[in-house]
Amino acid sequence: MLKTHIKAYGAISSTEPMREMIIERRAVRPCDVEFEVLYCGICHSDLHSIRNDWGTAVYPEVPGHEIVGRVTKVGSDVTIFKTGDIVAVGCIVESCQCCHYCQQGEEQFCEEGITFSFNSPDKVSGGMTYGGFSKSYVCEDKYVLNMPAFKDLASAAPLLCAGITVYSPLKHWQATEGKNIGILGMGGLGHLAIKIAKAMGAYVTVFTSSPSKTEDAKRLGADTVVLSSDREQMKACKKQDMILDTVSANHDVNRYINMLKVDGSLVMVGLPADPLKVGAFNIVHGRKSFSGSNIGGIAETQEMLDFCYKHNIVAETEIIDIKDVNRAMERLEKGDVKYRFVIDMATL
Amino acid sequence: MLKTHIKAYGAISSTEPMREMIIERRAVRPCDVEFEVLYCGICHSDLHSIRNDWGTAVYPEVPGHEIVGRVTKVGSDVTIFKTGDIVAVGCIVESCQCCHYCQQGEEQFCEEGITFSFNSPDKVSGGMTYGGFSKSYVCEDKYVLNMPAFKDLASAAPLLCAGITVYSPLKHWQATEGKNIGILGMGGLGHLAIKIAKAMGAYVTVFTSSPSKTEDAKRLGADTVVLSSDREQMKACKKQDMILDTVSANHDVNRYINMLKVDGSLVMVGLPADPLKVGAFNIVHGRKSFSGSNIGGIAETQEMLDFCYKHNIVAETEIIDIKDVNRAMERLEKGDVKYRFVIDMATL
Repeated sequence: MLKTHIKAYGAISSTEPMREMIIERRAVRPCDVEFEVLYCGICHSDLHSIRNDWGTAVYPEVPGHEIVGRVTKVGSDVTIFKTGDIVAVGCIVESCQCCHYCQQGEEQFCEEGITFSFNSPDKVSGGMTYGGFSKSYVCEDKYVLNMPAFKDLASAAPLLCAGITVYSPLKHWQATEGKNIGILGMGGLGHLAIKIAKAMGAYVTVFTSSPSKTEDAKRLGADTVVLSSDREQMKACKKQDMILDTVSANHDVNRYINMLKVDGSLVMVGLPADPLKVGAFNIVHGRKSFSGSNIGGIAETQEMLDFCYKHNIVAETEIIDIKDVNRAMERLEKGDVKYRFVIDMATL
Repeated sequence: MLKTHIKAYGAISSTEPMREMIIERRAVRPCDVEFEVLYCGICHSDLHSIRNDWGTAVYPEVPGHEIVGRVTKVGSDVTIFKTGDIVAVGCIVESCQCCHYCQQGEEQFCEEGITFSFNSPDKVSGGMTYGGFSKSYVCEDKYVLNMPAFKDLASAAPLLCAGITVYSPLKHWQATEGKNIGILGMGGLGHLAIKIAKAMGAYVTVFTSSPSKTEDAKRLGADTVVLSSDREQMKACKKQDMILDTVSANHDVNRYINMLKVDGSLVMVGLPADPLKVGAFNIVHGRKSFSGSNIGGIAETQEMLDFCYKHNIVAETEIIDIKDVNRAMERLEKGDVKYRFVIDMATL
């Protein structure tokens, strides 16, 4: 199989800064789409992965899984995309397509396990998948999303991971009109959750430990902001049907479980390293749930993109040049970003 | 209001053995039912309460909330019961009847809080409610259950708390035909859960740490018994739609969360004293839930009694005399009972 050599930006170890490198992309198969990467968001998972926090890094590693681009070539069997189309790839680039979950479009639950868009064993080309911090991407058409005509295309890139990560549970737990939906944490995930939950029609309450975030939360669409350190505010707050917990640091979940109505759910999408301590009394009284959710399937990701376009939702972003990516990673580590970095890949 | 004085058995402190005492019961109001207590089950909550493990005991305390008896008197407004009827009272003897939850027959979630059948502030008579370790009971007709004609009436008593505690979540999480339902723990709650889940049509897997319980689990209706200490058995076990966790001791819930299918729930009905540690990865992958459930409403308790009668389900019991109740409490503390003690109240 003919391969092309392209520029990328990646890590060669867990401790050294990322740097420019040359990687190989496979030649386009009949079912493949090749696209020039225009923008790529930076997610905390990219940082965890290049630092080998999860022990799964294979170097050289090219991160990036919020990938937006323009189609440069399509395989002979591809009918749904053509050269020049604006497309995107998120987390998933391969699944078995045979199991119960793939059949119903929930590839994230594939029984054989999915191939991630970066640092995942590549079943097609061998080696590992290389992500979107690169000049181009090649992927089977099934996993390519159609990008609606967002005015700010760069700021739409974070929808591919952060967006679907919050959209999927908000939809699954029915964040609709008449529902009280709480959002915990106001980072890359949380700020999009506020916008999306509000657009779904829910009454949105943001819980935050920072008084400085109140104004921004309201600007993003929150109906109420509760300072979590203020007992009186917590006590006066309406009970929630669902609270989406986007916090990745260790924290006390019981006080938020106690803010739920009967049959309510606290849904984790953050991934704190240590186990969370849940008091049995807190969930037993009121038949409450402590639940989790992880990204979404391809069909739902497309639905989310169309929903966000319709409701004029993109991420709040800082667009950076590729040469500033190491500095951005350092700032991301400290939570110093409002609210998502996106790399302009023309600068590579 | 005229009161009657009756014999009961209760605790005068957290450290002394229970003993015979005289308590007052209110005179029958127009809406009340009075009945002679025939049998009363012993639940672990009775033990926790008299020992003041929850810090809520008010002495003298008369426990007992799995109460079966024969009606001796009904108030002038009572139409659904008459003298001689075999009836029962479980955990709930008063709720607001006005809130959303009471209106839909889920009194266990009453927004004003429920009055328990023992050791609860008594809104009608003042003082605290006295439970079923007594010669008679008086209760508003709304909270009195109609006992079907169980052949072994004594062994039906534990249905009033243990039965509804497992029936309600099994029904809520839809333990029906085609579902894989796991039962964790094989005590008073667990042994009834096996019988009820099987009668609901589910495929029942019992997880136990004691090889000695395998045979009994199968006799009770389990389709499969998995020795939880055996890695190979755990690995080979089918994934579960729901696991009902009846264990009150501290234990690792993550290994059971990992036994769930996508969208599966581990549902606690036991109340371990220490918080349970839940790894975020375990619930996030596969959109799983760690949930709780607590007893059930009056209508559902009646439904459960009728269901158990239809399916010939009662608890496995040791019937004891009231004089042996302190010894029974000691054995209960050690888990030395197969599977529920019931007091023959004629012996008081």
